[in-house]
Amino acid sequence: MTKNKKVNAAILIIGNEILSGRTQDTNTSTIALWLNLIGVKVNEVRVIPDIEDIIIDNVNHLRKVNNYLFTTGGIGPTHDDITAESISKAFNLEYEIHQEAFKILETYYKTGEFNKGRQKMVWMPRNANLILNPTSGAPGFNVENVFCLPGVPSILKSMLGGLKNKIVGGNPILSHTISLKTVESEIASSLTNVQDNNKNVEIGSYPFFQAGKLGVSIVMRSEDQLKIEKCSSEILSFVNKKKIEIVDR
Amino acid sequence: MTKNKKVNAAILIIGNEILSGRTQDTNTSTIALWLNLIGVKVNEVRVIPDIEDIIIDNVNHLRKVNNYLFTTGGIGPTHDDITAESISKAFNLEYEIHQEAFKILETYYKTGEFNKGRQKMVWMPRNANLILNPTSGAPGFNVENVFCLPGVPSILKSMLGGLKNKIVGGNPILSHTISLKTVESEIASSLTNVQDNNKNVEIGSYPFFQAGKLGVSIVMRSEDQLKIEKCSSEILSFVNKKKIEIVDR
Repeated sequence: MTKNKKVNAAILIIGNEILSGRTQDTNTSTIALWLNLIGVKVNEVRVIPDIEDIIIDNVNHLRKVNNYLFTTGGIGPTHDDITAESISKAFNLEYEIHQEAFKILETYYKTGEFNKGRQKMVWMPRNANLILNPTSGAPGFNVENVFCLPGVPSILKSMLGGLKNKIVGGNPILSHTISLKTVESEIASSLTNVQDNNKNVEIGSYPFFQAGKLGVSIVMRSEDQLKIEKCSSEILSFVNKKKIEIVDR
Repeated sequence: MTKNKKVNAAILIIGNEILSGRTQDTNTSTIALWLNLIGVKVNEVRVIPDIEDIIIDNVNHLRKVNNYLFTTGGIGPTHDDITAESISKAFNLEYEIHQEAFKILETYYKTGEFNKGRQKMVWMPRNANLILNPTSGAPGFNVENVFCLPGVPSILKSMLGGLKNKIVGGNPILSHTISLKTVESEIASSLTNVQDNNKNVEIGSYPFFQAGKLGVSIVMRSEDQLKIEKCSSEILSFVNKKKIEIVDR
């Protein structure tokens, strides 16, 4: 993969707690924002249960149709943590003790604390590359283009920095937002014209309610700053004509 | 579908703003919690971009492998709102003005305010059933087992009540949570034993950090209250033996 190429990724959220509605996923947004900065666009997110066959099928599909796949969840010490074993099966690799991970956790925990539960966290697909965990010791891992991260948001966040050199992105995806004191229907047809004139800029329109104000944020996304600027000036032109107020947001 | 049958659903989140990380999806949790109460289990969630072919493919797959499919997003007045047209194509139905929806919005808006942008919101698949919108007028719609809701969380929430009679669920999915002042690795092997003894209860283990406290929530889910109670007493038994503190959460 070289620069100027489109690079994309999928995110696979593994966890019954998201599907039941008990827990609100926040990892999608964390990973997607971080990937944008290094020029990787998230094409698809899937949330699936802790069921081995379903994990294997989804991993094998998503890793083939995307440059990168990030999984979250299921790498802890309990019985419902089955990501590492499922990934081993997806790649037809032995599921075994990872010696380097073993050493890291042996050092991390005090003598006697590196119990059987914790030792489960060093079982990984053979020859997996470790993703270091500055927060709580237990590393994630990477096999080919698949990167397996934990589900706990604060731990996941702390591990992304260490991944930067392992991901080769394209040009960063730039975005610019114009927020207006209006409603979507007032600007819909003007915005359609701007989109028709600027096919290579992705233009999104998002209504918001904030502090009693009703508004619309128009978000332009492209790898090309000049294209965003052209698009932006066309939007400002109809905004001026319609005497719509621009708001901070 | 009769009671005592398992009833499941998928959720399809349509929107570039979720994939870019700009917006945090909260609709999954809202819909999933509501479905649990009426005995419908969410099996899968997918987040996809505002691209017609991708919407059609996902709708046609997910509606076939689930009892119900809920979509969110893409039914507003702007150029990036393409859900209604895509659903029409997925079902091979005409995309046309829905007379009942037209009348609703004609009444909802003051004279002169029902402009071209707003009129886009009454274009739907032929003979779609409306899902009424008590918040902002523009209805969602339903074709066969597919229910199309807006992306704005507050509006979506207000529309779920009106859907209740259209969804036939199984037994409600019951859950019980025990929160402990411990770490997962301390209880991992005991919890594995409990899961092995209680195959029909879905037991999840979720670490939490709250007000400086480190803890684990054990969540049991089943349609059968007695099975949850048996499972719960086995957990409390090892918790007592290990002298682990139970905490409110």
